[in-house]
Amino acid sequence: MKIIFSNEIVNRAAAYALRQAIFVEERGIDANVEFDKKDTDQRIYGVLFLEPNFPIATLRLEPQKNRVIRFGRICTRKEYRGQGFGQKLLEAAEQWALENGMISGEIHGELTAQVFYEKCGYQVTDGPYYEDGAPVVKMAKKLK
Amino acid sequence: MKIIFSNEIVNRAAAYALRQAIFVEERGIDANVEFDKKDTDQRIYGVLFLEPNFPIATLRLEPQKNRVIRFGRICTRKEYRGQGFGQKLLEAAEQWALENGMISGEIHGELTAQVFYEKCGYQVTDGPYYEDGAPVVKMAKKLK
Repeated sequence: MKIIFSNEIVNRAAAYALRQAIFVEERGIDANVEFDKKDTDQRIYGVLFLEPNFPIATLRLEPQKNRVIRFGRICTRKEYRGQGFGQKLLEAAEQWALENGMISGEIHGELTAQVFYEKCGYQVTDGPYYEDGAPVVKMAKKLK
Repeated sequence: MKIIFSNEIVNRAAAYALRQAIFVEERGIDANVEFDKKDTDQRIYGVLFLEPNFPIATLRLEPQKNRVIRFGRICTRKEYRGQGFGQKLLEAAEQWALENGMISGEIHGELTAQVFYEKCGYQVTDGPYYEDGAPVVKMAKKLK
């Protein structure tokens, strides 16, 4: 298992492939909503590879103002959910954020994932409200 | 069914997702070989969508010198092979190429796909030789 944070094409391709399979094809989110202006060549994605060419979880690093970072588009391949991979990836992303000067993590989590993010140390700060067609809550965690 | 030629993120994500599934995970090609310097924000991919959010075939447009265009990274989702989708996409790509000033199409086809490309009007001009670990033949077709 290896977790990589990078904007290299291999990482971006892995992230897009997971999101196409999970958000677009499994969950039915329109690809024009799922993929947006934040998905550029420069964007850094976190990808958890179970084996070198086999990515199973991803998230998007979205630095905000005031040393806040949002972790977006978090998803895990269907067959590998409930096994702690999402949490491992999120913890690694928090570590990456700390090393890159961030002090607070933010997630716009779907209501159905609220308990999972609470387990990861996030607390609801706002919502629920609708975003991209799904009810989400804004959650935050102090990183240091 | 709709075929789209574009470098927009939705199209690129669909192309990468198919190549990750087919070339990397099904065929075992290393992701660091599969995704290369030609996969940029500016690159135009052809994608055949069976339904709006469901891409099943893709190729990469690689203009060369002297009004030659190479069609690269051609692949079709496993369950949809042998049903003419690859050929439909290739014909649409030839049409795109013609409209964009190209006069000749080129494919570095795997030996196993040679008969398919011959059916599409391509003739072997060189090879076979090894490229990215597989025996390929260079094939060409006059577009006009």
